[in-house]
Amino acid sequence: MIIDSHAHVVAPPVFYAYRANLLAAGGRYRVPVGVSDADIAEAAGGNIAIMDSVGTDMQLISPRPFHQMHSAKPDQVVHWWMEANNDLIASTVALHPDRFAGVAGLPTCAGAPIEKALPELDRAIEELGFVGVLLNPDPWEGAGASPRLSDEYWFPLFERLEHYDVPALIHSAGCNSGRETYSEHFVTEESIAILSLLNSDVFERFPKLKLIVSHGGGSVPYQIGRWQAERLMPKFGGSADAEPFEVSLRRFWFDTVLHNPPSLELLFKTVGADRCLFGTEKPGSGSATDPKSGRVFDDFKTTIDGIDFLTDGDREAIYEKNALALFPRLAARIHA
Amino acid sequence: MIIDSHAHVVAPPVFYAYRANLLAAGGRYRVPVGVSDADIAEAAGGNIAIMDSVGTDMQLISPRPFHQMHSAKPDQVVHWWMEANNDLIASTVALHPDRFAGVAGLPTCAGAPIEKALPELDRAIEELGFVGVLLNPDPWEGAGASPRLSDEYWFPLFERLEHYDVPALIHSAGCNSGRETYSEHFVTEESIAILSLLNSDVFERFPKLKLIVSHGGGSVPYQIGRWQAERLMPKFGGSADAEPFEVSLRRFWFDTVLHNPPSLELLFKTVGADRCLFGTEKPGSGSATDPKSGRVFDDFKTTIDGIDFLTDGDREAIYEKNALALFPRLAARIHA
Amino acid sequence: MIIDSHAHVVAPPVFYAYRANLLAAGGRYRVPVGVSDADIAEAAGGNIAIMDSVGTDMQLISPRPFHQMHSAKPDQVVHWWMEANNDLIASTVALHPDRFAGVAGLPTCAGAPIEKALPELDRAIEELGFVGVLLNPDPWEGAGASPRLSDEYWFPLFERLEHYDVPALIHSAGCNSGRETYSEHFVTEESIAILSLLNSDVFERFPKLKLIVSHGGGSVPYQIGRWQAERLMPKFGGSADAEPFEVSLRRFWFDTVLHNPPSLELLFKTVGADRCLFGTEKPGSGSATDPKSGRVFDDFKTTIDGIDFLTDGDREAIYEKNALALFPRLAARIHA
Amino acid sequence: MIIDSHAHVVAPPVFYAYRANLLAAGGRYRVPVGVSDADIAEAAGGNIAIMDSVGTDMQLISPRPFHQMHSAKPDQVVHWWMEANNDLIASTVALHPDRFAGVAGLPTCAGAPIEKALPELDRAIEELGFVGVLLNPDPWEGAGASPRLSDEYWFPLFERLEHYDVPALIHSAGCNSGRETYSEHFVTEESIAILSLLNSDVFERFPKLKLIVSHGGGSVPYQIGRWQAERLMPKFGGSADAEPFEVSLRRFWFDTVLHNPPSLELLFKTVGADRCLFGTEKPGSGSATDPKSGRVFDDFKTTIDGIDFLTDGDREAIYEKNALALFPRLAARIHA
Amino acid sequence: MIIDSHAHVVAPPVFYAYRANLLAAGGRYRVPVGVSDADIAEAAGGNIAIMDSVGTDMQLISPRPFHQMHSAKPDQVVHWWMEANNDLIASTVALHPDRFAGVAGLPTCAGAPIEKALPELDRAIEELGFVGVLLNPDPWEGAGASPRLSDEYWFPLFERLEHYDVPALIHSAGCNSGRETYSEHFVTEESIAILSLLNSDVFERFPKLKLIVSHGGGSVPYQIGRWQAERLMPKFGGSADAEPFEVSLRRFWFDTVLHNPPSLELLFKTVGADRCLFGTEKPGSGSATDPKSGRVFDDFKTTIDGIDFLTDGDREAIYEKNALALFPRLAARIHA
Amino acid sequence: MIIDSHAHVVAPPVFYAYRANLLAAGGRYRVPVGVSDADIAEAAGGNIAIMDSVGTDMQLISPRPFHQMHSAKPDQVVHWWMEANNDLIASTVALHPDRFAGVAGLPTCAGAPIEKALPELDRAIEELGFVGVLLNPDPWEGAGASPRLSDEYWFPLFERLEHYDVPALIHSAGCNSGRETYSEHFVTEESIAILSLLNSDVFERFPKLKLIVSHGGGSVPYQIGRWQAERLMPKFGGSADAEPFEVSLRRFWFDTVLHNPPSLELLFKTVGADRCLFGTEKPGSGSATDPKSGRVFDDFKTTIDGIDFLTDGDREAIYEKNALALFPRLAARIHA
Repeated sequence: MIIDSHAHVVAPPVFYAYRANLLAAGGRYRVPVGVSDADIAEAAGGNIAIMDSVGTDMQLISPRPFHQMHSAKPDQVVHWWMEANNDLIASTVALHPDRFAGVAGLPTCAGAPIEKALPELDRAIEELGFVGVLLNPDPWEGAGASPRLSDEYWFPLFERLEHYDVPALIHSAGCNSGRETYSEHFVTEESIAILSLLNSDVFERFPKLKLIVSHGGGSVPYQIGRWQAERLMPKFGGSADAEPFEVSLRRFWFDTVLHNPPSLELLFKTVGADRCLFGTEKPGSGSATDPKSGRVFDDFKTTIDGIDFLTDGDREAIYEKNALALFPRLAARIHA
Repeated sequence: MIIDSHAHVVAPPVFYAYRANLLAAGGRYRVPVGVSDADIAEAAGGNIAIMDSVGTDMQLISPRPFHQMHSAKPDQVVHWWMEANNDLIASTVALHPDRFAGVAGLPTCAGAPIEKALPELDRAIEELGFVGVLLNPDPWEGAGASPRLSDEYWFPLFERLEHYDVPALIHSAGCNSGRETYSEHFVTEESIAILSLLNSDVFERFPKLKLIVSHGGGSVPYQIGRWQAERLMPKFGGSADAEPFEVSLRRFWFDTVLHNPPSLELLFKTVGADRCLFGTEKPGSGSATDPKSGRVFDDFKTTIDGIDFLTDGDREAIYEKNALALFPRLAARIHA
Repeated sequence: MIIDSHAHVVAPPVFYAYRANLLAAGGRYRVPVGVSDADIAEAAGGNIAIMDSVGTDMQLISPRPFHQMHSAKPDQVVHWWMEANNDLIASTVALHPDRFAGVAGLPTCAGAPIEKALPELDRAIEELGFVGVLLNPDPWEGAGASPRLSDEYWFPLFERLEHYDVPALIHSAGCNSGRETYSEHFVTEESIAILSLLNSDVFERFPKLKLIVSHGGGSVPYQIGRWQAERLMPKFGGSADAEPFEVSLRRFWFDTVLHNPPSLELLFKTVGADRCLFGTEKPGSGSATDPKSGRVFDDFKTTIDGIDFLTDGDREAIYEKNALALFPRLAARIHA
Repeated sequence: MIIDSHAHVVAPPVFYAYRANLLAAGGRYRVPVGVSDADIAEAAGGNIAIMDSVGTDMQLISPRPFHQMHSAKPDQVVHWWMEANNDLIASTVALHPDRFAGVAGLPTCAGAPIEKALPELDRAIEELGFVGVLLNPDPWEGAGASPRLSDEYWFPLFERLEHYDVPALIHSAGCNSGRETYSEHFVTEESIAILSLLNSDVFERFPKLKLIVSHGGGSVPYQIGRWQAERLMPKFGGSADAEPFEVSLRRFWFDTVLHNPPSLELLFKTVGADRCLFGTEKPGSGSATDPKSGRVFDDFKTTIDGIDFLTDGDREAIYEKNALALFPRLAARIHA
Repeated sequence: MIIDSHAHVVAPPVFYAYRANLLAAGGRYRVPVGVSDADIAEAAGGNIAIMDSVGTDMQLISPRPFHQMHSAKPDQVVHWWMEANNDLIASTVALHPDRFAGVAGLPTCAGAPIEKALPELDRAIEELGFVGVLLNPDPWEGAGASPRLSDEYWFPLFERLEHYDVPALIHSAGCNSGRETYSEHFVTEESIAILSLLNSDVFERFPKLKLIVSHGGGSVPYQIGRWQAERLMPKFGGSADAEPFEVSLRRFWFDTVLHNPPSLELLFKTVGADRCLFGTEKPGSGSATDPKSGRVFDDFKTTIDGIDFLTDGDREAIYEKNALALFPRLAARIHA
Repeated sequence: MIIDSHAHVVAPPVFYAYRANLLAAGGRYRVPVGVSDADIAEAAGGNIAIMDSVGTDMQLISPRPFHQMHSAKPDQVVHWWMEANNDLIASTVALHPDRFAGVAGLPTCAGAPIEKALPELDRAIEELGFVGVLLNPDPWEGAGASPRLSDEYWFPLFERLEHYDVPALIHSAGCNSGRETYSEHFVTEESIAILSLLNSDVFERFPKLKLIVSHGGGSVPYQIGRWQAERLMPKFGGSADAEPFEVSLRRFWFDTVLHNPPSLELLFKTVGADRCLFGTEKPGSGSATDPKSGRVFDDFKTTIDGIDFLTDGDREAIYEKNALALFPRLAARIHA
């Protein structure tokens, strides 16, 4: 079974008209979403065709990250938008329960206490039957004001994730800084997330916390030598007997959304196949056809199948077993 | 001949007392630097011993990046500090002209017109005999306000660099954002620099501009698949007949400061040995001993010597020829 | 002939998906609009049915105001969005040239010189054949930073409007202040516009400037006694021999978008039928059915037909003649 | 008996020298007020002559709104200034207890908890014998930062008003936005106040809360059709079975400070004579002579006496009965 | 003849009501000043009685500093206020030309180019016959944003002062910092003014510039040893052959507004009687009676008469000759 | 015995390299200080030679004020820096216990609760054996945001100082305002400190609080007449029966760091020898040689020995007895 742990819901266009109206209403009143069942069915059907074209059996779908607008004001707008996203995902899952499972968006509003986002987390897990959450480490969307993931600001969320035993996929949203662009911001935020957390005691405080880093871990596997060295140097706050950085790094999980085959190989070698989850982010920015290979860039399965140093067991882990172990609520659903 | 294109001057401690006094004086008066010839000789001697230990013949030395304080106020402080740095480098080069060459720091003050930094550039090239410059793409040091390198803000500098035919080593300085830390900020800024410039017409405007990206290109070689795909997709502003991203990427040069051997291999394969310059950033954050190899992380030469797919010609290019071609003022000095 | 001078284009939902993608791209690249001819035809057809239901012959259509996002950053996003709006309007007009005429949205970006908005004005008038423009007096959208319409900031725009002899419909856009909501902000901005301009020499500087105030002039006709009195009192900057406020007020034109019949009567009595233009803003926030009358609130024609003090000549002026006189490019098209 | 529910104390000039000194002292020390009994007597006498000229028996006097400077810093300055205003009003009332009653200014300092304003409210009601309060809904005076009246920020004040059973006259103060001017800001704030409160559950929470809106309700009676329609449309957060807007609107009271007779007629028809209180804001910005009528604009009594659809009972309600019912402490004083 | 070079106009209370109305109008219209000739005559007469009580023959009167509100917005308010101040001073001088001469307030608006203040300077000198100006070195009134007097921002003003050969009395205005209070801010600003100017080349650029420092030079004569030493130390930007600080200090003039006799002695000894001008700032904060001496603190003449080391020539210089030499327009008037 | 109560530790240059590294690390990790025992011994030895040259027996040494960087961010940097300073002082004292005693720097971080600074105070007193603390009244270093010393913000610190019975030396640190320079800022802050505290009830709340004002009390002894007068004038918040200012002023202690002998005489006459402590701030900005006297400016002992109105008892108090009485922990150490 091929489980795609990193995919985003395909929404019908009218969903974005709702988004525009929501912004215009400014939180003063709740605009009706106005998405029909037929709209959802059409969008979901198109996505299933795409999945079939690359051999994906099941997608874990979350909101489209760069439309989450976590920094929009007032916060009420973000809450209604995230709720509508989760409802849309739930409807999509309900239509095709054997092809989709839900990963919840959270109303983590810039500047608001994280506790305000928890009721929607509760609803997604308990009422909508979701199996994971999407975690934006930068709710301020490029303004530089978000607390690092190692900050106690996030602890109530981590505690709740442990309580439900659901993993979080770390994936930033928009970026309005004027310097970074949205895609590159993903990479930056993933790197900051890893480095901040590994420089903290978060994993000691929350030993059952499960965090997946999108896009193959940002820049970290490539730049790992620098972090290994710093860990060992007193001059940079390290010590010669510190836990090696490459060991610490394996406290995270990683998806396979790296469109360059040698990079994917580097990832597997660096963190191990047992920490990697098949993911495609498809359809997305990688859906162009590579003129060299003749295949779409985000056809990761063909790439993975072709990596010679991976064993069949590695591939089974990447495609299915790691996901089932990490997402117990998904496993329960499939086995039910 | 082994030329290390990325190294920073080793300054005596009293140079930092000067820095502290300069900050305290707040630009109101010019504090004497107070570094003696003996101080410089001792610091330079120590560095030469380190170079000898890894077989480096010559270092191109620039100011220590994270002490540049380009965002300090008032701007006068930055000017005096950069001048003192360049003077210190010039003195070091004068002591050992066959072991060092100068790469200038620039007083690119946060918020000031770039033209204000050019007189010091002139001085460094014309009077001090420097061969290149260090270019901080984020003078605001993490505050999010620096214009991207593709912004016309930077054009007068690019024009002057073309005029002198000197390359610039892109390397950010401090970072006070509270989210990023200084080392990770290097990686982020290098990625932003590459992506901004390749999404602009800067290389068309300045066809002779020579830019070297530090630390093996930030995250770009690892995440390259994403950028290749976006280039081809109309939905993301690309087009099917666009110049392939990997071709465009070769408009830059890259140093070899990647402490993880597989990453270094990925770099060479991605951009080609003819675009890479040997660099060590030594002594620096990579000078810890790798418990696995028993060697210091920043002993890049041993690593490069051991990469089997590189030819002797590749190594000669990386170690010497590329640098001599890129830095004509260095070549002239050596051949004189 | 019944000409509706205040109407907004009805866009297909996919147009808002474009808007969301544009915001996500952050101005870095130009997203394809992705609206098909069929989408436009369907949306336009629906609107024509609505027009027929209330007896409107022709609508002057402009962008939907509260989706204009004049304060979005970077400015490039606003430019692309306004261009797409004007293109959509032009396509709609091309489909039904006898039912629609174009009123252009302008990329009046918050904080940018007004001159930057003029090329799109030129394109709309000269290339797309539009007959008027929509003028948002608060490009900062509630942030309090927009120069008043009496400020010289706006003079280059007024000059160009005189040059083309096209009127501007004053109509604010979104409001992000957290205090005002978007509809109430319309009323506030219309009042500020009238009072600022009448307290300046703009109409002396630009004697041919034609400005239409939306929604029956905001609060001014209702609160007019206060402004009449202040005009006459030295203590408030007035003088006994000043031009009476009610005379000055007739330098503007007004639409009839007032959903309360007695208010509409007050408007006609205060400014005169010769300064009023039939307008419906339909479909819009007035399209609910009034339980008392059994008609939709924005069926203004029935209301106007029933006002006994209006003559047939008054009604002809309101419905057609005033519009043709004010919009010479519309008259030319109809008569061609 | 003609009771003028909206009037402001006439202060002697030296009171403004005190104000200037208070600002200069910056809250560091308490400047003596320096207003003599003779100063007060002279100012009060002048005002009584004005009242006599238009037939007013009694005025409810509050501080002059646009001199309240609620946004001045530090807060201590505002406290001392409001206390001096209330003392001045109390002295004026003491001189002419049958012609004046006190309406208290409150030290509602921008950014401070509303609880800080309550001790002065207590003092005004319990010690000074005032009968109502003046409520500035925008203590930030145009800076855009004031919480709407529907925000829980204001609840402790509403609770205290219910406790004392005293009404509040909603009337904004200065405006430093650079866009709005002070008079127009009154209208804007009154409209925001009505719309915010009717879009909240404040009247359910505080069923005995008595709020009077100045200047005939801002723009609301004129623009009412828009709000009626939106109430009924799901698309704008309404529903077809919502309480009609015109019914909800009658939870407020309104004064008659509308200097245009047709506007006054519109007000009475819209909200009913039983919700209107005679008010003049005299002497004020309406005290110019209307060249058409030959009377001062703010001679509202003559206007009201001439409106033919009002009954004698309506007029009695407007002039006296509504006020006595709304202000029980006033009624008690008069009947004592 | 006893000339008091530092005094401020005594304004009638109604002048402050004007100020309050001006602030309320927000620059939108020009409020009539409303000060009668009788008001001015009464205020001036009171002041002359005070002058007579301490034996002052003539006062050079300027606006009351802490009411200048140079940081008020919009700038128009400041312009109108300064013009009204100068008009009031001119009227006072016209009533008693042998007892008063005018020193102009300037509309040096926070953040505006200094050139905007020059037309009022021209008017004061050329039309109103003033003899000097009051110079606030901190138009931002404690916000920390004012350019130092050594900044080229001020050069156009210095040039104009040289052109007219009129001196400027350095005297700050209000202070809204929340840390400093207005009186202490005077002392701080005077110290900053002296130190900034003596650390610049302003006196070389403007050799005829005449600057008087209020209140005996702030803290500088008391703390002078520190500045003398720093001038000589290379470590603090000095040099052993620099012009001694005490020599440089004599480029300024100083008034005698020091209410402590030993401080006045220190001043005379430090800068010399030939650089001192009699001044009283009377009536002002020094008008309390000293319980020890039984005299008012600001009876400086008695103090000066009693200092034994002063010669008669010194006293004549302090009381009259220095002023006549420094203010040629005053000398011309007296001798005319 | 000559006790110098105001001196700062002489640090070796490498201590400033540590400072620069600390800033670069941005609080992410703790950089090793890297100061050797030999470095400390050399620096301390140099300072003892200086002390011997002017006859000082013992110095109370605190951190160098303008290097304290209390406004640096994040706060962690300030904490580590202050701890390193106190450790350096403790090591210096340990080397020469009969020549030095420790006065602690505090991590009073700009914007942080004062309670966060108390653990280091505890450590300094209880573990390191320090005898006093250095108190920077402006942790924001010129940004204008520090609460005055009279603000309750500081009360927990005052309470702890009373608990330990240790005095605080009021001495500001850096100043980044762009207007003030660091030395002049000292004077300003000392004046603000005195005036704020004497205008509050702090000495009533903390009757055992011992505060020493550096540099002879800023500007206060020179400008004292102004404050005496204001104390007595109701118009400025005073009253005729207030405690005389000169009496209140004696609640503070003062050091003798005034490099101008007449100023020192003024200080002794104003506050009395029993409130003065010998201090030199040596080596510092006063260590230049006065060309007139041929002695260094900061050789205060020679000056004090030469003041004729001081008795031997006065000198004994200034040199030793006042310090021993004020610093009981110093007295205990000396007598042990």
